[in-house]
Amino acid sequence: MQRIYLDNAATSWPKPTAVYDAVDRYQRENGAAVGRSATRVGAEVQKAVDHARRQIGRLFGAPASSIVFGFNGTDVLNIVLHGFLRQGDHVVTSVAEHNSVLRPLKFLQSRLDLEVDYAPVDAAGLIDPEAVRNLTRDTTRLIALTHASNVTGAIQPIGDVGQIAKSRGVPFLVDAAQTAGHLPIDVGQLNVDFLACSGHKGLLGPLGTGVLYVRPGCEGELLPLRQGGTGTASEDESIAASGPDRYEAGNHNAPGLVGLAAAADWILQQPPGALRLHEIGQTTRLLEQLSGLSGISIPGPVSAEQRVGTVSFRLESLDPQTAASLLETEFGIETRAGLHCAPRMHAALGDLHSGGTVRLSTGPFTTNEEIDAVVQAIRTLVGA
Amino acid sequence: MQRIYLDNAATSWPKPTAVYDAVDRYQRENGAAVGRSATRVGAEVQKAVDHARRQIGRLFGAPASSIVFGFNGTDVLNIVLHGFLRQGDHVVTSVAEHNSVLRPLKFLQSRLDLEVDYAPVDAAGLIDPEAVRNLTRDTTRLIALTHASNVTGAIQPIGDVGQIAKSRGVPFLVDAAQTAGHLPIDVGQLNVDFLACSGHKGLLGPLGTGVLYVRPGCEGELLPLRQGGTGTASEDESIAASGPDRYEAGNHNAPGLVGLAAAADWILQQPPGALRLHEIGQTTRLLEQLSGLSGISIPGPVSAEQRVGTVSFRLESLDPQTAASLLETEFGIETRAGLHCAPRMHAALGDLHSGGTVRLSTGPFTTNEEIDAVVQAIRTLVGA
Repeated sequence: MQRIYLDNAATSWPKPTAVYDAVDRYQRENGAAVGRSATRVGAEVQKAVDHARRQIGRLFGAPASSIVFGFNGTDVLNIVLHGFLRQGDHVVTSVAEHNSVLRPLKFLQSRLDLEVDYAPVDAAGLIDPEAVRNLTRDTTRLIALTHASNVTGAIQPIGDVGQIAKSRGVPFLVDAAQTAGHLPIDVGQLNVDFLACSGHKGLLGPLGTGVLYVRPGCEGELLPLRQGGTGTASEDESIAASGPDRYEAGNHNAPGLVGLAAAADWILQQPPGALRLHEIGQTTRLLEQLSGLSGISIPGPVSAEQRVGTVSFRLESLDPQTAASLLETEFGIETRAGLHCAPRMHAALGDLHSGGTVRLSTGPFTTNEEIDAVVQAIRTLVGA
Repeated sequence: MQRIYLDNAATSWPKPTAVYDAVDRYQRENGAAVGRSATRVGAEVQKAVDHARRQIGRLFGAPASSIVFGFNGTDVLNIVLHGFLRQGDHVVTSVAEHNSVLRPLKFLQSRLDLEVDYAPVDAAGLIDPEAVRNLTRDTTRLIALTHASNVTGAIQPIGDVGQIAKSRGVPFLVDAAQTAGHLPIDVGQLNVDFLACSGHKGLLGPLGTGVLYVRPGCEGELLPLRQGGTGTASEDESIAASGPDRYEAGNHNAPGLVGLAAAADWILQQPPGALRLHEIGQTTRLLEQLSGLSGISIPGPVSAEQRVGTVSFRLESLDPQTAASLLETEFGIETRAGLHCAPRMHAALGDLHSGGTVRLSTGPFTTNEEIDAVVQAIRTLVGA
């Protein structure tokens, strides 16, 4: 059976062939560590990593020197939450967050006596910027919000929240796990101080990569999560005071970053807006056909423009795990079922105790035929 | 010019072909995230990661459930140092440590009022276990030592220190960055509580992988460095209380771990002791020929049995960077020159202010011809 992969919100697949080729070529022909060697191959892999930094910077409207590479999206979110928050701080976040934000906050809450407020979502899973404004106090040290829900794909009003954060003088962390590579992002325009995402979802790089934008000037307040060798200033027992080095102790995932560089090249080579148009087109196709069925409910915005390429659904007749299992075994359709590491969002959507949702998430290589095959399969499942 | 790669102490290259093949096949044909999906491909990559855990466990004499995967060696050392140490603790370490231990200790020293004592090394760069014993106090909470120096390759008396740690009831962290995959390691026999290493050096896996053994029962005292989604118990905002999950928030480096599984298979398929014999043979060949030259000094033990496959040298006539550069441009020999992220070791060896050493480090695929070519090249450099 042909694989129909609709779990791009977990990790994108397939990637552009250039990504596989770059990783494989690096592994077989180069093999050097990044920033540890003055050899020809060492310079070559360093160049690829520098290139990745510049290209990711271009995607975010940020200088290369503000881009930090880490292990995964969770890792770079932890860099900010652990490194920036201090004893007694107040944090505003939302119920739409992933456990990669909720769990560090919970952990730090008991250790640092943090106070955390969670902005609610409306019936479509959207945050109201005014709710964030109202939760913000004089002691608020950070606003931390997801750019788009990993459950519904709903795009949150990050621009408006950025304005509020700026006007209140509160640093703003955006979890762009579901939007980097999907939506245009300009960290300056959005008034973002920290932007965190993985390199292996919309950015189409390999797993084992995380990306963090740190607004220049924030390094003094942002302590590093890890300390260790960086290949620079080896005689110094303190880690660098600024620059990506400050947060990049230990060896880089060189094959991962070589792949990420190729992925960023591929994204930037597409006609402007083309990937987003493709995503909107397919999400519209999916939403229109699915919403016509009975026995199905689809949390989140009705319009594809308000989503990334993610659509969650629940069936009246089948629990999510069973539905996902049938979709794969009967139709070759790979999805993800369950709570999607976002417990407060599922509580808000009312399906926390009924097993969550089945999530479909498209990628740049998803075809209309695949979308139609999914619709047909779900139609069969609900007996329509 | 043919590459002669002698920087295996930084990262091993080449790796077994099976490693490249496994990574490439995973990327092109599987692509699923680990532990996030009930699909066929999800189960397949989960199986590979479980297999990697078992195989690494076999290499360390440890159960699979005690093996944690992280970003790199520095990351897993930080997991232990940040997660285990508390306000006012006393730590015994040594001057032979890498910055991946020195820098986290320095960072924590100011935040937790740690007291840190550094055991000295003798002229051969070896730690005296009695010095460690003498530095240990009633308030000592951790002994943290490298298993072998990344500068000289000298194997430290970890077994004896393990006995001391055990008899004093002090938890013992071993940095096995230079020994995992090189030397037989049995965490039980060595009385080790935490063993940290990268997956991409002697273990022959891809970059972007770190490996940590946590002695069962220590999880209560070892807080996680990161918190986030693990694909398990998504409804819970606290991270797991035990098991690898506790330290593995966020997506795994799936291609890296698939490669690491293939690498561990390859290592375990070699005849027992064969890799170590090969290493000793080549190190002996290198030491014997180099020590006959004039104008060269070679810090560290005279006997190859007391080293992993690493030999550092200094020339009277050329600084390390120039020597390394000539070795590459004139002879195609790739080495590493400088301080090797071990400033206290270089201070002890007396070359901190003269640019450190040129380091040669062999791997399982290094040939006698390559060793002889290096010796001949150095002979030319010193005008012998």
